[in-house]
Amino acid sequence: MYIGIDLGGTNIAAGLVTDKGEIMAKASVPTNSGRPTEEIVRDMAELSKQLITENDLSIDDIEAVGIGCPGTIDYKTGEVVYCNNIKMDHFPLSDVFRKHLDLPVRVDNDANCAALGEYKINGGGASSYLLITLGTGVGGGLILNGRLHRGFNGVAAEPGHITLVSGGERCTCGKEGCWECYASATALVRDTKRAMEKAPDSLMHKVAANAGKVGGKTAFDAAEMGDSAAKQVVDNYIRYVADGIVSCANFVQPEITAIGGGVSKQGESLIAPIREYVYRYEYNKHMPKMKVEAASLGNDAGIIGAAMLCMEE
Amino acid sequence: MYIGIDLGGTNIAAGLVTDKGEIMAKASVPTNSGRPTEEIVRDMAELSKQLITENDLSIDDIEAVGIGCPGTIDYKTGEVVYCNNIKMDHFPLSDVFRKHLDLPVRVDNDANCAALGEYKINGGGASSYLLITLGTGVGGGLILNGRLHRGFNGVAAEPGHITLVSGGERCTCGKEGCWECYASATALVRDTKRAMEKAPDSLMHKVAANAGKVGGKTAFDAAEMGDSAAKQVVDNYIRYVADGIVSCANFVQPEITAIGGGVSKQGESLIAPIREYVYRYEYNKHMPKMKVEAASLGNDAGIIGAAMLCMEE
Repeated sequence: MYIGIDLGGTNIAAGLVTDKGEIMAKASVPTNSGRPTEEIVRDMAELSKQLITENDLSIDDIEAVGIGCPGTIDYKTGEVVYCNNIKMDHFPLSDVFRKHLDLPVRVDNDANCAALGEYKINGGGASSYLLITLGTGVGGGLILNGRLHRGFNGVAAEPGHITLVSGGERCTCGKEGCWECYASATALVRDTKRAMEKAPDSLMHKVAANAGKVGGKTAFDAAEMGDSAAKQVVDNYIRYVADGIVSCANFVQPEITAIGGGVSKQGESLIAPIREYVYRYEYNKHMPKMKVEAASLGNDAGIIGAAMLCMEE
Repeated sequence: MYIGIDLGGTNIAAGLVTDKGEIMAKASVPTNSGRPTEEIVRDMAELSKQLITENDLSIDDIEAVGIGCPGTIDYKTGEVVYCNNIKMDHFPLSDVFRKHLDLPVRVDNDANCAALGEYKINGGGASSYLLITLGTGVGGGLILNGRLHRGFNGVAAEPGHITLVSGGERCTCGKEGCWECYASATALVRDTKRAMEKAPDSLMHKVAANAGKVGGKTAFDAAEMGDSAAKQVVDNYIRYVADGIVSCANFVQPEITAIGGGVSKQGESLIAPIREYVYRYEYNKHMPKMKVEAASLGNDAGIIGAAMLCMEE
């Protein structure tokens, strides 16, 4: 049995995970990310101990602990090189955790963990797999030859920061025109608001008023009701998402690309037109096409994938 | 000893290549690409035999023949699935070649071969390597873990067709806004001509008149003479090239990115500002940076890399 921990800005989520990637039990506590990081790590260890005892296990039943953490991780040493939303700067996360719970610990980037989790459960033995998560930003992870691809320096697979519109919208990373400035839920809401300003008669205003806010669903819902301004927002958004996936396909040709994150709850009404666009415009016209599908594990992906880190050789 | 053949639209170039990647002898004949492909393949074999006899070798001295070919290649079978500039459609290149010269034959995409050649000679044992060639289009090849990365379907590493400006210039591939529509020599000449139209007093007109044409050097030469319109063309071009390299870095983090093709003859005056832009804008701010350098083998890369195909297990 393994423990997988997904350290998020809001919650610490942990699970008991079998070597097949099955979650046997889960628990979570608030991160309270403003407090000293040592306290957060102590709570991560306490949560792990709670999972062990509440499930009638002992520490000896646990092979290892995997931790998915936001930011720049040195996966070889378990050090958090830099994390912005939970303040860490060259913080030896693995070592500090082991002071509280002395088990082998593996640490990697949270998006890498999510990709590894989705791959192990839904990859069906594919040789390569790309997870793209459409959320506040655009994140993801890349599996090549059955293993996480980390690049020579450990920090590859930041698909949200490939260029989609050179010289376009300013990204939080400092560059202009990153994919996440167009394909994130944040970007979708921004573009929805811009379209609403230009179209005072659009059904988007009614949809947003009913929901109490402009959200990622606003344009999709109004488009389904036949609103043309909303349909334009949706069409543009689908093209932005798909154009970035075409980039990934033309460069790396993963066997499966899975789309996760809140927006992906739109299901096939989002995935089908993306797939159609990708198949039409990818450079490969003569060889088998990569699969384009929805991710399915949601928040569990990070827990499972963190545990799966421990099984990498 | 190996034979490496670079089958180009204009010339068939072949070389005797040692297992260290050293070219011992070279020869070439015109491709005459309009004629039946069987004839072209016969000439490839004749050229190989000529190399063998003119260098006092026998067929027994040759381990294998590697062929770099444009288009979509099934590298597992040696079939050219599709090639546009030398007409081939499901053409069994490997089998047809062996009818004329019965040696083990490996075939792969010409850009993959060039990347493998540059990597073997100039990669210095790096774990990963990306070659980007700036020519008529933007081509390239990707080495990961010391091997060509071909994707699940054999046709990965088409970096020229990652998206640089979603919805931008129309590409020959059918998509809009591909990197090669902005970073190829063809695009540079187009943008130079556009800038010249808008700036009748620009020194670019004089430079082009002296050279007898508007070329890839026109804007660079005029910019060096202090021409502001030319400098704008060069600055934009550098940003286009660099923005695409940032995409490759953020997605895959190769240890070395090498820039080849005719435009790269500008040397450090082109490479240095690209490197500076990439280092400034890549997402990775905390871990080692990939090297950005000029490729150096020119046309020999394809011959060497084709031979090196034969040494892959």
